[in-house]
Amino acid sequence: MKKKNKKVNAAILIIGNEILSGRTEDKNTAFISKWLNLRCGITVLEVRIIPDLEKIIIKNILQLSKKYNYVFTTGGIGPTHDDITAKSISKAFKVKYEYHKEAFKILENYYGKSKFNDGRKKMAKMPRGSNLVYNPSSAAPGFITKNVISLPGVPSILNSMIENCKKYLIKGSKVHSETLNFFTVESNISKQLGLIQKKYKKFVDIGSYPFFRLGKIGVSIVSRSTSKKKLGKVKQDLMKLAKTKRIKLLEI
Amino acid sequence: MKKKNKKVNAAILIIGNEILSGRTEDKNTAFISKWLNLRCGITVLEVRIIPDLEKIIIKNILQLSKKYNYVFTTGGIGPTHDDITAKSISKAFKVKYEYHKEAFKILENYYGKSKFNDGRKKMAKMPRGSNLVYNPSSAAPGFITKNVISLPGVPSILNSMIENCKKYLIKGSKVHSETLNFFTVESNISKQLGLIQKKYKKFVDIGSYPFFRLGKIGVSIVSRSTSKKKLGKVKQDLMKLAKTKRIKLLEI
Repeated sequence: MKKKNKKVNAAILIIGNEILSGRTEDKNTAFISKWLNLRCGITVLEVRIIPDLEKIIIKNILQLSKKYNYVFTTGGIGPTHDDITAKSISKAFKVKYEYHKEAFKILENYYGKSKFNDGRKKMAKMPRGSNLVYNPSSAAPGFITKNVISLPGVPSILNSMIENCKKYLIKGSKVHSETLNFFTVESNISKQLGLIQKKYKKFVDIGSYPFFRLGKIGVSIVSRSTSKKKLGKVKQDLMKLAKTKRIKLLEI
Repeated sequence: MKKKNKKVNAAILIIGNEILSGRTEDKNTAFISKWLNLRCGITVLEVRIIPDLEKIIIKNILQLSKKYNYVFTTGGIGPTHDDITAKSISKAFKVKYEYHKEAFKILENYYGKSKFNDGRKKMAKMPRGSNLVYNPSSAAPGFITKNVISLPGVPSILNSMIENCKKYLIKGSKVHSETLNFFTVESNISKQLGLIQKKYKKFVDIGSYPFFRLGKIGVSIVSRSTSKKKLGKVKQDLMKLAKTKRIKLLEI
């Protein structure tokens, strides 16, 4: 019983001009956030997207690492001039930016000595005292420095590495969720929904999100809670509401 | 010549638990950011994604509205209990949260007097002194309060409204961009790319982004500048680099 309702939180810091400019759509937030919740019981409470500028990275690392249990950064750990995440984190925490011996070996092995050029060596440089997050798809490891975990920006590579973050994380209580899809408009049920939210205020978060499917308008009602029992009660109330208002449900 | 290099910036504040939890992928950042750059010459410098919590919304509105020329919020302006953006902005700016006469009329007209219930009326409530951003797809207007523009979270509705923001915005210089797709890996060109970036430091931002296409690995090199001339020079240098290294280009 002791471990019940242990709240562990995180922030995500997306580093990259290509996301800010709209050139690339961010896929990492949804992936990391779902993984943290399902696999680790960790809730993401804030996401920031910032440019590849040292001063701004430093400021955000310091702010977020103080405020949340963990900070996940994505992007800026490759071999090119605009990859400045590791250097910036070193400066933020005032530790040396230097070759990580194991990372150096991994990369030297991967590329072969003759092709291990300066750009590739750069990917072995990180804040002193960092631990590695192994990368099964393209070798260059991520790293954890204090409570900051740095991962690459390319979604497929990040996805392949995420399980290797697990050993560094303290687990929290899992947040369960239950979704009901009503064929109605939000403004038809907003009052009743507000009352149900009020009734379970402390235990369940209820959100409502319009959707359009098969030419029809609907509302997805998402309830989230660490207690499955309370979720069941909210579901009962919502089903009663649908019945009273003669609202059809979309089965998925 | 006077208007050259006028820098106007903005932040985007995505309000919504559904984005933070990973349930919904954020489509609005890329859309708003591209539109602002292409149509208004405004550069997005920061994005934050935050939960539907009044205190947190207020804090972020105050921080971002001080720091940037404009703040675009998305989400939380619908009829349900979790839609608290308008109320929170009122509190942030210490102005009354009240019915906007024109918004009230628009919505009353849209729903018809008999079906204009409390939830629907709520969508006409906004910070005193706000101006409307008309909504051609589902009537409920967005609004601008000081330098904060509030839009809905549903991408299709937001997209339909965005042109109506234009009259409230001061325009900046357009940032042009040029992309070259090299069939190589980043670490093969990182040194040379760094030198080219150094050469045009003040005028052009060069970013490099790995891609995977048709089973091949490549790097998209994106140069961004308000000067088309400088962009042309960077392109020349990059083409020279490709030639020297015998790198094939992907034509799109």
